[in-house]
Amino acid sequence: MKRDPRFDILFEPVRIGPLTARNRFYQVPHCSGMGYRYPNAEAHLRGIKAEGGWAVVSTQEAEIHPTSDLTPANEARLWDDGDLPTLAAVTERIHAHGSLAAIQLVHNGLHVANRFSRMIPLAPSNSVSDSLDPVQARAMDKADIIDMRRWYREAAIRARRAGFDIIYLYSGHDMSVLQHFLSKRHNHRSDEYGGSFENRLRLFREILGDTKEAVGDTCAIAVRLAVDELLGPAGITSEGEGRDVISALAEEPDLWDVNLSNWSNDSQTARFSEEGYQEPYIGFVKSVTTKPVIGVGRYTSPDSMVRVIRQGIMDFIGAARPSIADPFLPRKIEEGRIDDIRECIGCNICASGDNTNTPMRCTQNPTIGEEWRKGWHPERLSVKDRPEPALIIGGGPAGLEAARALSQAGVDIVLADSGDEWGGRITRESRLPGLATWARVRDWRVGQLQVRPNAQIYLQSPLTVDDVLQYGVPHIALATGSRWRCDGVGRTHRLPLAFLSEGKIVSPDAVIDEGGQAVTDDGPVVIYDDDSFYLGSVLAEVLVEAGRHVIFLTPEPQVSPWSNYTLEQSRIQKRLIDLGVQIIPSVGLAGRTRDSLTLSCVYSGKLSSIDCATLVPVTARLPNEDLWLAMKARECEWADAGIKSVTRLGDCLAPGLIASAVYSGHQYAQGYGTAPEDGRVPFKREDIAMLYGNATPGKLTADLY
Amino acid sequence: MKRDPRFDILFEPVRIGPLTARNRFYQVPHCSGMGYRYPNAEAHLRGIKAEGGWAVVSTQEAEIHPTSDLTPANEARLWDDGDLPTLAAVTERIHAHGSLAAIQLVHNGLHVANRFSRMIPLAPSNSVSDSLDPVQARAMDKADIIDMRRWYREAAIRARRAGFDIIYLYSGHDMSVLQHFLSKRHNHRSDEYGGSFENRLRLFREILGDTKEAVGDTCAIAVRLAVDELLGPAGITSEGEGRDVISALAEEPDLWDVNLSNWSNDSQTARFSEEGYQEPYIGFVKSVTTKPVIGVGRYTSPDSMVRVIRQGIMDFIGAARPSIADPFLPRKIEEGRIDDIRECIGCNICASGDNTNTPMRCTQNPTIGEEWRKGWHPERLSVKDRPEPALIIGGGPAGLEAARALSQAGVDIVLADSGDEWGGRITRESRLPGLATWARVRDWRVGQLQVRPNAQIYLQSPLTVDDVLQYGVPHIALATGSRWRCDGVGRTHRLPLAFLSEGKIVSPDAVIDEGGQAVTDDGPVVIYDDDSFYLGSVLAEVLVEAGRHVIFLTPEPQVSPWSNYTLEQSRIQKRLIDLGVQIIPSVGLAGRTRDSLTLSCVYSGKLSSIDCATLVPVTARLPNEDLWLAMKARECEWADAGIKSVTRLGDCLAPGLIASAVYSGHQYAQGYGTAPEDGRVPFKREDIAMLYGNATPGKLTADLY
Repeated sequence: MKRDPRFDILFEPVRIGPLTARNRFYQVPHCSGMGYRYPNAEAHLRGIKAEGGWAVVSTQEAEIHPTSDLTPANEARLWDDGDLPTLAAVTERIHAHGSLAAIQLVHNGLHVANRFSRMIPLAPSNSVSDSLDPVQARAMDKADIIDMRRWYREAAIRARRAGFDIIYLYSGHDMSVLQHFLSKRHNHRSDEYGGSFENRLRLFREILGDTKEAVGDTCAIAVRLAVDELLGPAGITSEGEGRDVISALAEEPDLWDVNLSNWSNDSQTARFSEEGYQEPYIGFVKSVTTKPVIGVGRYTSPDSMVRVIRQGIMDFIGAARPSIADPFLPRKIEEGRIDDIRECIGCNICASGDNTNTPMRCTQNPTIGEEWRKGWHPERLSVKDRPEPALIIGGGPAGLEAARALSQAGVDIVLADSGDEWGGRITRESRLPGLATWARVRDWRVGQLQVRPNAQIYLQSPLTVDDVLQYGVPHIALATGSRWRCDGVGRTHRLPLAFLSEGKIVSPDAVIDEGGQAVTDDGPVVIYDDDSFYLGSVLAEVLVEAGRHVIFLTPEPQVSPWSNYTLEQSRIQKRLIDLGVQIIPSVGLAGRTRDSLTLSCVYSGKLSSIDCATLVPVTARLPNEDLWLAMKARECEWADAGIKSVTRLGDCLAPGLIASAVYSGHQYAQGYGTAPEDGRVPFKREDIAMLYGNATPGKLTADLY
Repeated sequence: MKRDPRFDILFEPVRIGPLTARNRFYQVPHCSGMGYRYPNAEAHLRGIKAEGGWAVVSTQEAEIHPTSDLTPANEARLWDDGDLPTLAAVTERIHAHGSLAAIQLVHNGLHVANRFSRMIPLAPSNSVSDSLDPVQARAMDKADIIDMRRWYREAAIRARRAGFDIIYLYSGHDMSVLQHFLSKRHNHRSDEYGGSFENRLRLFREILGDTKEAVGDTCAIAVRLAVDELLGPAGITSEGEGRDVISALAEEPDLWDVNLSNWSNDSQTARFSEEGYQEPYIGFVKSVTTKPVIGVGRYTSPDSMVRVIRQGIMDFIGAARPSIADPFLPRKIEEGRIDDIRECIGCNICASGDNTNTPMRCTQNPTIGEEWRKGWHPERLSVKDRPEPALIIGGGPAGLEAARALSQAGVDIVLADSGDEWGGRITRESRLPGLATWARVRDWRVGQLQVRPNAQIYLQSPLTVDDVLQYGVPHIALATGSRWRCDGVGRTHRLPLAFLSEGKIVSPDAVIDEGGQAVTDDGPVVIYDDDSFYLGSVLAEVLVEAGRHVIFLTPEPQVSPWSNYTLEQSRIQKRLIDLGVQIIPSVGLAGRTRDSLTLSCVYSGKLSSIDCATLVPVTARLPNEDLWLAMKARECEWADAGIKSVTRLGDCLAPGLIASAVYSGHQYAQGYGTAPEDGRVPFKREDIAMLYGNATPGKLTADLY
């Protein structure tokens, strides 16, 4: 196919200082949870983006000095020459596909605790580290400022030596010493680096000049600037000093990459924002500078991309999350394959990787992070020659992905679901408030399956064990999902709570499917959330919208604490407070009558009591394993029925994230027809490479890839 | 010197299966925050313990399979042969000093989320991972049990190949699949692996037999068992199934290592327990088995050690923390140098290393974790020939350690303090409830200094800048400490809160020094804790004991959240609740009148009001830098005064942990007389070794050390 001419504008080359980007697709710096700890994974991740058509591919923030030590986070490091091979591997993979390689230099100032280096953090003024660590940063004196400028300069030179084309200075996310100097909150100095706006900008201006002088002849110098902190007058705003910085330095850098601070404002989830949510804040930038401008906003629609270019909001379509969900997004637009775009759902499971110091994963793209260690490719998949057909039972995330991937690889598949619609839990949950985009997980896969001649897909097709045995297909995959349990068992209570049945219980599944109708009593509805991710809070929203008085209990000290890792926690708790939900943290369940619950303080064991007409326990799930158990009970008949394998996928094997279900389905396809693992580590390791590697300093060897 | 004969019993050899330990000092498995990620650091840490005289030195728990993946924790790994070189480095360092090397094999069952391997956790029954991750473990079927047995067996064989002498099976801390099978809370099975005690013990018994068969001819097999979970009848107890396990398997292992579960019960801090706190639970063990028994309990007194051997409570003095604070503890007893023992203070800063996924540190022993990367030794320190003398001003933790270490290295030092007693903040804080042992930081250093002919130490000696300039000493170290600020500035409020002065403010320093007397008003005392470690909660105890009504505010969702890393958080919050302290989490300060405070919800910004007669803001500290600033102002006079360097140490450079102050003082001594760092990374790195290493698989090269 050929691309639609209305998208031609996206493929215009754009000059960036001494360089030219081949199109307007720009993967901005984003964390990957890999960095210096998993350098082969990092290099291959970035290489795949270049292969997918992003004209510029950035690695993540690179700590420029051991006084900027984010251990245990897996960022990039440029502490000394020892880091060059690792980063050279990244640029090599990016250049191999004709893209420009960018790196974001950072000294994290008071954002770090320097847990590994044990050095003292540096800041404009005496201040507490903004991690929770019992660590304070010291106020930089003039000698420190000279050091800081030298460190930035040395890092820029090293970055060029590692092969980077675009070198970023970073004043964003409240994580950079440049932003700390700019910020009236953090900069209480009385010398020429504090006080007036021009004084607070001084260090930034100096380091920008130093960097241009050091590497600006061959490299493009980019600035990543937070133009608004969403703190009103207490912070930088796009009407105030955010605009002032761009006015003051307008033509100095070769590129402006503008966004919101902090990270939770920059990377908002679909639950809390729409595509393009940053436009009101960054729209002014191009009116103040002639240099190219990049913005982000979770753009996945080519039409939206064309609009923001034509409206003069930006010159490049910046992307982090959409490039993770579909590294081949640019190429698919170029090749006129719009329907093949795997759109980001805005769930921030990717961010949870970096936030848990682990290589990233993605709900939509199960190959992310697996490019090197498993050799997975987001667009290509092959299985052994002449594969035998598969029957996949269950059309939720695991079943859909297994069917899609197998059919792509040339396996004849039958996908059967007992229900009236595809998607399983994705479809059900996507009807909940804020989760509509999650249906993209279903839509993309169903769309891909519908055009495959080797895929037969059937709804309203419940299958019994007899049906399966008679089907005559050698490989059976069960993807029958899971259901929420109602006996109270979860993290806090490991044994069933018999007393729960003293009053009304409504399962989370009933609320998901029937909304407020699932609750028939007018009294208070109590959600007991021992799951700690999103669902409890979403069900609270559903029930409030249905007019119920909702009480939210959790053994944790916060609502939905795991959503800290998806950058959503404070927004969720604020929303529940604003909706009038009564939140009682740090309690377990200790007893029940028909219209009350007894709570137990998780610290002291002290008991208290609340009114409760209906209890919705959000604690844990049980796999739907009836069909599996029935099949296992007749395992002696498999061979006669021509069955060679029966495999459980996704939630019916172990309930987990939608991302995990998609991954499970994909993994099945990748290993299709091969013997099951025999206990060997099923991926290449680089955590042990340090005693295995045979590279010499400054020289990369091919076998590290 | 020669050892006191009353300690002879501690130096008797003890048989462990096919092996003999040379004495009764046994470093039990403990995490180090190093493990597979920092293998050189790990190997050298363990080697130092062996050098210090511990007859057995254990590495930490080793994950035996990628379904047991604690990423991002830095444990040991035995996933495949690739891990052998890393672990062989450990045993080599231990054997070099004549000690036995032990390793604790573990499959972590439902304790892991397998963030890196992305494999499904395994458990006796369907259950939620006990991390907060949205991950469930699946119930193991018979094939899984066969796999598990094979994995343990293979790991034992690999451990022997890596050179380990003692191989542990581990059922403790609620972190091991063996304990999960034993536990009625976790094991809901109805087959022969669940239900009755003997059934729940079955897997343990089988794996113990497998291990003996595989490696028991040459290796000793140890069992580490939690005999009590401190959960009463809801858990394993030392009167119940804890005792039953030992009775059932009494003579099966070669060694019993018994303790409490979970980790926070096993490693209680001095704030919550005394030396020997496990004796009531483990005292019975030797009555049930003839095999040698190890217990722990933060023993630092040789007399206590003799007592527990003589009383038949244990055969070995197990230690983790005391061996960190003083790796040479056994040797010092052996050499009759009791006064040289550097006693553990029981603060659990060591545990915070592992819990923050960072190499461990120690308040008492600044060399821990630095053995490899900086070449520091806990007992030896040298500086260049004929060093010039030093004047150290301030006798708190940084000043005392600098003085002690320099004088040990042969530098003539003068230590001057303006006050009446040594120790600075250590002395002041050690008078607070639960912190008495912290005075050991002072006592050991003062004791060491008092016997050094080259150390002159003076109290009641305030020095002005003129005094210093006239002193005629070339190297000056300032260790003048810090003070708590009272303007509200901390993590949450980055700018001073002018409204605070509308009512009475009492500084934390005043409460530390004067106790409840510091508060003169009878109305409610409000502690606003934005520091988030121990002090706010300790001051609440002080004020309650003085009869005050105390309200505890924090912007965090818990009291003292950083103390989660020292395993104390839940104990602290329980204590405050039990004392009647009113706790209001998740609030900032928004306004004040003479007798009230306005609070702002950190999520919603909603305002509320409480009564407040006196406010104690525990937010951040300011360095005491008057002398430093006065010296800097007269820098042009230094050369004429013979001054070559003036260096700030500890809190007066940047307020932090006592451990950081001690480290700062020690670092000064280690680098004494050398040029200041010029921006190079001041330690050897192994995070980049994977692209530098030149070892080949299975063969260790000397330059890895």
